[in-house]
Amino acid sequence: MPGDLPPDQFRSAMHRAADLIADYLERVGDYPVLPPVSPGDVGRALPPAPPEEPEPVDRLLDDYRRLIEPNVTHWNHPGFLAYFAISGSGPGILGEALAAGLNVNAMLWRTSPAAVELEERVCDWLRQMVALPPDFKGHINDTASSSSLVALAAARHRMPGLEVRTKGLSGLPALTVYASDQAHSSIDKACIVLGIGQENVRRVASDAEFRMSVPALEEAIARDREAGRLPMAVVATAGTTSTTSVDPVEAIADLCAREGIWLHVDAAYAGSAAICPEYRALMPGIERADSIVVNPHKWLFTPVDCSILWVKDPALLRAAFSLIPDYLRTDEPGVSNLMDLGFQLGRRFRALKLWMVIRAFGVEGLKERIREHCAIARELAAKIEADPGFELAAPVPFSTVCFRALGDDRFNERLLAKVNAAGPFFLSPTTLNGRLTPRIAIGNIRTAREHAEALWDLIVRSAAELRTTG
Amino acid sequence: MPGDLPPDQFRSAMHRAADLIADYLERVGDYPVLPPVSPGDVGRALPPAPPEEPEPVDRLLDDYRRLIEPNVTHWNHPGFLAYFAISGSGPGILGEALAAGLNVNAMLWRTSPAAVELEERVCDWLRQMVALPPDFKGHINDTASSSSLVALAAARHRMPGLEVRTKGLSGLPALTVYASDQAHSSIDKACIVLGIGQENVRRVASDAEFRMSVPALEEAIARDREAGRLPMAVVATAGTTSTTSVDPVEAIADLCAREGIWLHVDAAYAGSAAICPEYRALMPGIERADSIVVNPHKWLFTPVDCSILWVKDPALLRAAFSLIPDYLRTDEPGVSNLMDLGFQLGRRFRALKLWMVIRAFGVEGLKERIREHCAIARELAAKIEADPGFELAAPVPFSTVCFRALGDDRFNERLLAKVNAAGPFFLSPTTLNGRLTPRIAIGNIRTAREHAEALWDLIVRSAAELRTTG
Repeated sequence: MPGDLPPDQFRSAMHRAADLIADYLERVGDYPVLPPVSPGDVGRALPPAPPEEPEPVDRLLDDYRRLIEPNVTHWNHPGFLAYFAISGSGPGILGEALAAGLNVNAMLWRTSPAAVELEERVCDWLRQMVALPPDFKGHINDTASSSSLVALAAARHRMPGLEVRTKGLSGLPALTVYASDQAHSSIDKACIVLGIGQENVRRVASDAEFRMSVPALEEAIARDREAGRLPMAVVATAGTTSTTSVDPVEAIADLCAREGIWLHVDAAYAGSAAICPEYRALMPGIERADSIVVNPHKWLFTPVDCSILWVKDPALLRAAFSLIPDYLRTDEPGVSNLMDLGFQLGRRFRALKLWMVIRAFGVEGLKERIREHCAIARELAAKIEADPGFELAAPVPFSTVCFRALGDDRFNERLLAKVNAAGPFFLSPTTLNGRLTPRIAIGNIRTAREHAEALWDLIVRSAAELRTTG
Repeated sequence: MPGDLPPDQFRSAMHRAADLIADYLERVGDYPVLPPVSPGDVGRALPPAPPEEPEPVDRLLDDYRRLIEPNVTHWNHPGFLAYFAISGSGPGILGEALAAGLNVNAMLWRTSPAAVELEERVCDWLRQMVALPPDFKGHINDTASSSSLVALAAARHRMPGLEVRTKGLSGLPALTVYASDQAHSSIDKACIVLGIGQENVRRVASDAEFRMSVPALEEAIARDREAGRLPMAVVATAGTTSTTSVDPVEAIADLCAREGIWLHVDAAYAGSAAICPEYRALMPGIERADSIVVNPHKWLFTPVDCSILWVKDPALLRAAFSLIPDYLRTDEPGVSNLMDLGFQLGRRFRALKLWMVIRAFGVEGLKERIREHCAIARELAAKIEADPGFELAAPVPFSTVCFRALGDDRFNERLLAKVNAAGPFFLSPTTLNGRLTPRIAIGNIRTAREHAEALWDLIVRSAAELRTTG
């Protein structure tokens, strides 16, 4: 009987992996954030064909250490400040490792009672932490892309008299979805998948501070109604990707209520900050949404993937999605079967890592870390504003700073390339008002004031060098 | 600066987690497969509110051990024979733990070169192992639900003259999708999501051995064409969920070629068996598909989630999905950015665990395990056929056995309940020809001949007891 690895071999390999991970976290800051490889380098180092015979586990771990670890982009590096900086904190890694050992598929209550009930409880903990009312019921998806897709599918299902689930969209008038020109690309992708079509996503203009214009939204809805199209959902963003601006959710919610339109709030990033009352106060009205997505894998120190979707009416998710073939029928009364809440049948035990993170840091500890990141960002912003060679490109409500060196796009592009090439930092750009804009996203649990200070020195020095050497 | 757990605390907690996991795998067989809890039991043991203050990591691990581990359904138990039995093998668990430590998001080549290039390589290894031609390019999704959704979205995109991506489905004739009455529910769910509508999924009749009837398929397509509907895709299944039957893919491929219809093959379960030439021979024609899904997290000993989607034309996936906002633009030439291949932006480093599994067992070792499972299933089937109190309910091409005790549905239901209540085994039922049918799915790496023998004794004894006590 061949079976799994011999128990002793597995145990000692797990201990070696424990040390590899602990070593990595201790010295991740010594790596350049971006690995020094060109496209194809890693691929060429991998044998083209799989091995016929078993290889010793120690050789695999050696290869991991030699070939994989140095050649990933180091998202856990304190100098990773691109996109939205994320981190797999220690407690989250513990939770993920334990979940891998259990290997449950939490599709049904029966297929893992503890996983289902912990997921419900942990989603409710986070609901309390971000001060949402108890009628929001949460579950965990892989990504905000999936959470928003599920929310928009529920919105589509709620459209009166359409029977989209059964009959599909063919022959119907166009459905329309509204999001600001700052909303995340996952909203367009969700609408492509749902058969709504990219040109039926209205990218509503935003104001000078990158917040959706409510008059423009109102006008877009009215125009669509007049043309016989069917407004289906508005996606308001609390913490946009480029600048972390917050749409005026309260006014949008008023409009949605008047118009009978589903309101989905994408708080994938800034929702984590809502655990602090002062940042929750920056997003009034999110409690009036029909659905809200927050990604603990973004700024709540939980390893990818972990995206929470809260909806006010989970019965609607079930109506949109539940489909129980004979081979998945169970008879426990009153239980929640997670498979009924979306399109994916299989579900990992993602609640475990989030439970560990919340308990290991405590709500106060999480607030402290979020506040620290925001304080570091504000300090950086103040330095940028104080320096005549630079300008702040957007307000800094949370922990992300958009700035430009005085000069054209080409200069800012070269500055960014020079900063990234130095090794200890990785920034990514966005485009604001048509101009290339470097961006500093603080969010990694290992990023401290000293890193921000070193980064600012590097930026100032790099800009000066570029200006003198041309 | 608050930061992560202190390094020493994390290291010692990881070592304790290593032992918790190793201990669990050593004694998982001592648990009853289904935990002895009622709905709500675990939830009630969890505090209703999150802790304000940090808790010591050892307390979390104690609680994990006390409250979580005993109350999951033990998918890693050798007696888990429900649904499709899966396993997180040792090498896979190591890979998942290491991936959690790295915590990369492999959305772009730049955001993790090693993760992207290892994913391409490992998908190609498995392609070679299942003897598919080199024009199939693979990537890894979370679940077969997502893989099939992505494949069907590509099929929709390929429909000539429709511009679904841009304009959506509104105003178009109905698109139709074909799958046998034995196909997985994820196909209906994908069509609901895509806006095709559940009633436009034709559930084509299958024959006495649960394989799609090609004449019935042909007729359904002709009827739809006549009615002005647009046949979009056929989903053939290689290893259906109830009986693991294999649709006549070769004949279906001929029909799809003639009709210009996309052919998607759902080999989520049996695709793993295709690494053995004798089982690959049971699915002739799968190499003619436009897309194929195989889930290593099902029967290739890889922890959930890991679903490979191969497509012949990855440019089509890009055409269907790619949408690059300014903040995700990169400039490496010729690299593959995984985010372009589907609707989810975030992507975990799932290739690592599959790489470890393939190398630790070797192709030969994996074949040996698959063959062992199939042999155990055949032996069980022979015992069932030889016993006048039982009947085999379907052929056994792979490792799953559908059977019935002589008697009505009620009797089989009670038998199943009695067997499951004993503790060491968990079977799930399906429905075949309208009759409740218990099902034994061999697929866990820890399931050996001795378990199948003990199960059969238990089934025979339980049936006898039910017959005498009534």
